[in-house]
Amino acid sequence: MKRLGILTGGGDAPGLNAVIRAVAKVAGAEGVELYGFRNGYSGLIRGDYLKLEKQHISGLLHRGGTILGTNNRENPFNFPVEEDDNIVYKDMSNKAVDNLETLKIDCLIVIGGDGSLAIARELTEKGARIVGVPKTIDNDMQGTEQTFGFDTAVTTATEALDKLHTTAESHHRVMVLELMGRYAGWIALYSGVAGGADVILIPEISWTMENVAKKIISRKEEGKPFSIIVVAEGAKNPKGEQVVRETIEGSGDPVRLGGISHLIARLVETTTGFESRATVLGHLQRGGSPSPFDRILATRYGEAAARLALSGEYGKMVSLRNGLVTSLDFGDISSGCRTVPTNHVLVNAAKNIGISFGD
Amino acid sequence: MKRLGILTGGGDAPGLNAVIRAVAKVAGAEGVELYGFRNGYSGLIRGDYLKLEKQHISGLLHRGGTILGTNNRENPFNFPVEEDDNIVYKDMSNKAVDNLETLKIDCLIVIGGDGSLAIARELTEKGARIVGVPKTIDNDMQGTEQTFGFDTAVTTATEALDKLHTTAESHHRVMVLELMGRYAGWIALYSGVAGGADVILIPEISWTMENVAKKIISRKEEGKPFSIIVVAEGAKNPKGEQVVRETIEGSGDPVRLGGISHLIARLVETTTGFESRATVLGHLQRGGSPSPFDRILATRYGEAAARLALSGEYGKMVSLRNGLVTSLDFGDISSGCRTVPTNHVLVNAAKNIGISFGD
Amino acid sequence: MKRLGILTGGGDAPGLNAVIRAVAKVAGAEGVELYGFRNGYSGLIRGDYLKLEKQHISGLLHRGGTILGTNNRENPFNFPVEEDDNIVYKDMSNKAVDNLETLKIDCLIVIGGDGSLAIARELTEKGARIVGVPKTIDNDMQGTEQTFGFDTAVTTATEALDKLHTTAESHHRVMVLELMGRYAGWIALYSGVAGGADVILIPEISWTMENVAKKIISRKEEGKPFSIIVVAEGAKNPKGEQVVRETIEGSGDPVRLGGISHLIARLVETTTGFESRATVLGHLQRGGSPSPFDRILATRYGEAAARLALSGEYGKMVSLRNGLVTSLDFGDISSGCRTVPTNHVLVNAAKNIGISFGD
Amino acid sequence: MKRLGILTGGGDAPGLNAVIRAVAKVAGAEGVELYGFRNGYSGLIRGDYLKLEKQHISGLLHRGGTILGTNNRENPFNFPVEEDDNIVYKDMSNKAVDNLETLKIDCLIVIGGDGSLAIARELTEKGARIVGVPKTIDNDMQGTEQTFGFDTAVTTATEALDKLHTTAESHHRVMVLELMGRYAGWIALYSGVAGGADVILIPEISWTMENVAKKIISRKEEGKPFSIIVVAEGAKNPKGEQVVRETIEGSGDPVRLGGISHLIARLVETTTGFESRATVLGHLQRGGSPSPFDRILATRYGEAAARLALSGEYGKMVSLRNGLVTSLDFGDISSGCRTVPTNHVLVNAAKNIGISFGD
Repeated sequence: MKRLGILTGGGDAPGLNAVIRAVAKVAGAEGVELYGFRNGYSGLIRGDYLKLEKQHISGLLHRGGTILGTNNRENPFNFPVEEDDNIVYKDMSNKAVDNLETLKIDCLIVIGGDGSLAIARELTEKGARIVGVPKTIDNDMQGTEQTFGFDTAVTTATEALDKLHTTAESHHRVMVLELMGRYAGWIALYSGVAGGADVILIPEISWTMENVAKKIISRKEEGKPFSIIVVAEGAKNPKGEQVVRETIEGSGDPVRLGGISHLIARLVETTTGFESRATVLGHLQRGGSPSPFDRILATRYGEAAARLALSGEYGKMVSLRNGLVTSLDFGDISSGCRTVPTNHVLVNAAKNIGISFGD
Repeated sequence: MKRLGILTGGGDAPGLNAVIRAVAKVAGAEGVELYGFRNGYSGLIRGDYLKLEKQHISGLLHRGGTILGTNNRENPFNFPVEEDDNIVYKDMSNKAVDNLETLKIDCLIVIGGDGSLAIARELTEKGARIVGVPKTIDNDMQGTEQTFGFDTAVTTATEALDKLHTTAESHHRVMVLELMGRYAGWIALYSGVAGGADVILIPEISWTMENVAKKIISRKEEGKPFSIIVVAEGAKNPKGEQVVRETIEGSGDPVRLGGISHLIARLVETTTGFESRATVLGHLQRGGSPSPFDRILATRYGEAAARLALSGEYGKMVSLRNGLVTSLDFGDISSGCRTVPTNHVLVNAAKNIGISFGD
Repeated sequence: MKRLGILTGGGDAPGLNAVIRAVAKVAGAEGVELYGFRNGYSGLIRGDYLKLEKQHISGLLHRGGTILGTNNRENPFNFPVEEDDNIVYKDMSNKAVDNLETLKIDCLIVIGGDGSLAIARELTEKGARIVGVPKTIDNDMQGTEQTFGFDTAVTTATEALDKLHTTAESHHRVMVLELMGRYAGWIALYSGVAGGADVILIPEISWTMENVAKKIISRKEEGKPFSIIVVAEGAKNPKGEQVVRETIEGSGDPVRLGGISHLIARLVETTTGFESRATVLGHLQRGGSPSPFDRILATRYGEAAARLALSGEYGKMVSLRNGLVTSLDFGDISSGCRTVPTNHVLVNAAKNIGISFGD
Repeated sequence: MKRLGILTGGGDAPGLNAVIRAVAKVAGAEGVELYGFRNGYSGLIRGDYLKLEKQHISGLLHRGGTILGTNNRENPFNFPVEEDDNIVYKDMSNKAVDNLETLKIDCLIVIGGDGSLAIARELTEKGARIVGVPKTIDNDMQGTEQTFGFDTAVTTATEALDKLHTTAESHHRVMVLELMGRYAGWIALYSGVAGGADVILIPEISWTMENVAKKIISRKEEGKPFSIIVVAEGAKNPKGEQVVRETIEGSGDPVRLGGISHLIARLVETTTGFESRATVLGHLQRGGSPSPFDRILATRYGEAAARLALSGEYGKMVSLRNGLVTSLDFGDISSGCRTVPTNHVLVNAAKNIGISFGD
């Protein structure tokens, strides 16, 4: 074993740099070189990489984002190539595999989400030697109990809820916070419980505005004329409309906004008479320094991935199971998204302390 | 002197509770009672108040919001009154003055913004004994150098910028952060400089999309293919359109959103080809525990207001001038909004280190 | 079931109030009263309690400490009683059991550490109906995987390490941070990994100053003329001396200080020639608002404890096992302290990325 | 003008990097090179420097410490030189001046405290062209209203007080926090007011233990059986002993510890009977990311220093006066330390809200 490669794909998440650092530390201790490809698979195909040395790794543990850059649009199997001044999309996967050989990279470590790891699996079938590290702040990946970035996102969302509480209470308002989670409501569920939400709306649980209004009104009757609603961006709205669009005046061209929270705030006002305001937390959930938990999890993932790579166990993804870092074959990862079971222990506990899910 | 009153009006701001606490501490030391009216002037007119005792004040210094509640809609001179099952609006200002007499309140301390203090001035002309404390997180009030809540808002906005930086850098994106400031760009200016923004757009300085694009492109040419834009919500957009509206599908009913940031993000994409994303920080800027600076300023304001009240100097607002807390007559407060001079020292310093204001 | 009691014993930990809140919410939903005893078992024996109502619970989730007060000195089996102007120590355990009967408390929920739960077990043997909730920020209790307060303590310690890094690097110093952990090094281990420590010294692993110096010097040779050492207060020093004492000039009376970190800093200077400084984090680790993880864990513990109490399952402690909240009999809790196994997965991962444990 | 130099001297402070960045930005815009000397004046004498390029400056604004390194021991006028295997101390100031000429540095920017700027003044008298930037987290420098790093130190100390509050209240204890400030109590004064301290002890105000005890006892009588004491490390203790020393068992060799807080905690216990605990915040006050205020002040200082240098105004220090950044001649800086006047406005305000200074 002489040389490892590493790349980060998909949306950024706090902890990516901590994984890179851990891989580099293990590689360094074993006298193995580490090449970092820039901007996800693009760097692999374009041959854009740097040799990661000690000075690149210094001070990396607590930095958000990824020093390698990332890319969630360019897919090796459908890659944008310039031809006669036009962009055409081609299958460049052989180029990816060839470049690993040309650069004499014994194993490539891919840190990425569903999409990036599906590509890793396909490249593996073409002969590439790859170890995967799961990454999503949504915590909805199959094959692992928890992903780094999630705890940090929950912390950011909880701090936002703490801030909205003071305004809600002072103004007797209903504050609605929209969080990430297109298909799975993990961030909304965890930060909703941690931030003292009164209502949590997630894609997995059908809700009605009537039930939401009922909760708000019952709180008023108990002397609490304010409420906090947390909603995952993917929560279906009660009328089946999921997307709110804006038009810019004088344009007419619709653009997607966040949105479900704005709809809910308006419905709260019309159904309960309470003033209501929406906040879309958006990209703030991805940013910042990783929480201690995420730094540790990312470090463990990176260390485990490097050891797998060094011992020749390719075609696997590292995974957290019962608190231990283990691994499983790419082929054994279930497809689809790991959603919140409607009877999840935290959903039940939340209901027992009076939180409404609108159902 | 036997009894003081206190109320908080307008939008909540971090530090309101610290003012209340300081007033209560001074009153307590002087053996003077303190009545707190609930929900701004509403409590004064409706006779809704509580006697503030030691236990109400305990642990108040670091709490955001206001324990008295606030209200930025009900004006004593145009107050909603129920009559024959209808709401009619009446001048209830005499009732406000009378209630102060009936409750034997020697002086009322009003903590509020432009609107609340304009009302305080009018009530003073009707014979009420009032001392004012300026409050706005926007820092745009006449008659004082700084208001509490501003430093906290700048801190929250700066933390948001720190978070957006990691995503901007990792994804080579242009991130746009929309901050409060309808008429004055103080929050955008200060947090833009503190958060390392590349472009700051404020209502006071006319900007063009061409200049914004030029800055973004020149950064790319210097090897930095990402940028951060901070925009005050009131920054005029280059086409003169200031408001972005949404329509909810199947509804057609337009509702105001934040918005200018979404417009700018789209224009960045069309003019520069960079991916761009908008975040509206919104109510998060009002919330949370006040910064140490704001706790100290609020404490000084509260202490000074209580002393003015106790020494019979009514009809005045406490004010910060050259770092000292002083006071000025309600009549001597200039009208209008304290905006950012286009040649403000921090604007000039920002330009000298390469920040673009789009002009 | 008509009435529950609750008390908090031992050192305070972030999350105590979140447990109280969750118990109160479940009790409230079931129409059961909740009496809170003040200052641990003292309140039970002295009959010092309050009926917890909605207003006591409001805003409690994010508050550190315990609104009930706590006490880690007064033991019902050896309780200080005033007699003829003297304090004598008596077995007041029967009084404790009797008071529960007199107050018609169907079940008492005790939130506490080793000591408080050992007392709970003894009171159970005397007929008291008790449910226990484990608490220690050290995370060293038997019978549960994790206790609330630990994640917050690790977060505080990690933030401290982030701060010390900048000084270490700027001054080419060796900074030593002393953390809690008399018998178990969990806080030092977790925050050491999360905070990028170069050396971690814990009670479970024997270390020598030679090995510590070797690590510091090898870092210098790699171009990093600074290091961070994390040490648990209970780490045995290499000469077998564990306690550093101070004498106040002109007094001679020795008092215990933190200490091991000061000793190590001096030894670093004498053995390596590097400037070294010690910081004792001390009580800061106990304080502050609980982290989101701790708020959730505390909420789950409180909810589970209330359900156990309501369903008559007394004599049990709630417990986290494989991420699920379950319970076990007081009699089944192993004695002693849950220490860090010397081959713990995180110790091994830490060693693989180059962290020295001085062994 | 072709080339500037820059160095950082004395203890590190949050904001040093922000000054460097601002200088580099202005220099870059003017097409002037910038050389950074490593480790304070040592780098100047040893010829240890790097040319600061864009990549060194990226991401610097929010980083604590100094990328140039610092040194608070090596003085050009008494510099350690190796001779015949011995270290001898020599006047190397001519070497410093010569190196500036040899490297064709038109002006050197020195960021430092009292000591570093006194050296700058002496080098100026020898012909060096220097502009100074004041730096101390203690905020006690003559010639300027505020230094960067101070607001961050106050924020860190205030957060520590918020944490100690929960323990103080839960355990009915008196918590003592020892803060920096050997000669001036600014950090203790500001964070004491911001953090809700009950007693603030600073070097400038003589205090007695009797008065401290009186305050603690009067609080208990008002139903608050806990207190927070903030003490500057340089506060004279009532018996005239200022230093607490430790001996390590079996050694006898005394080493200076923090200490005054430990003495006070013990005296609190003996005079009032309250449990009391001390915490020494120490180096944590220097570390971490600068607050928004400090980032802005540091940026303004750096921008102003660069402009002074570029316009040939040497022999001056930038300075904050009435909120504006101006400058004054090295010769016009008063000697000594800027201490807290005993009738400072914040001292008076603090006393009016019931804070005791022990006098």
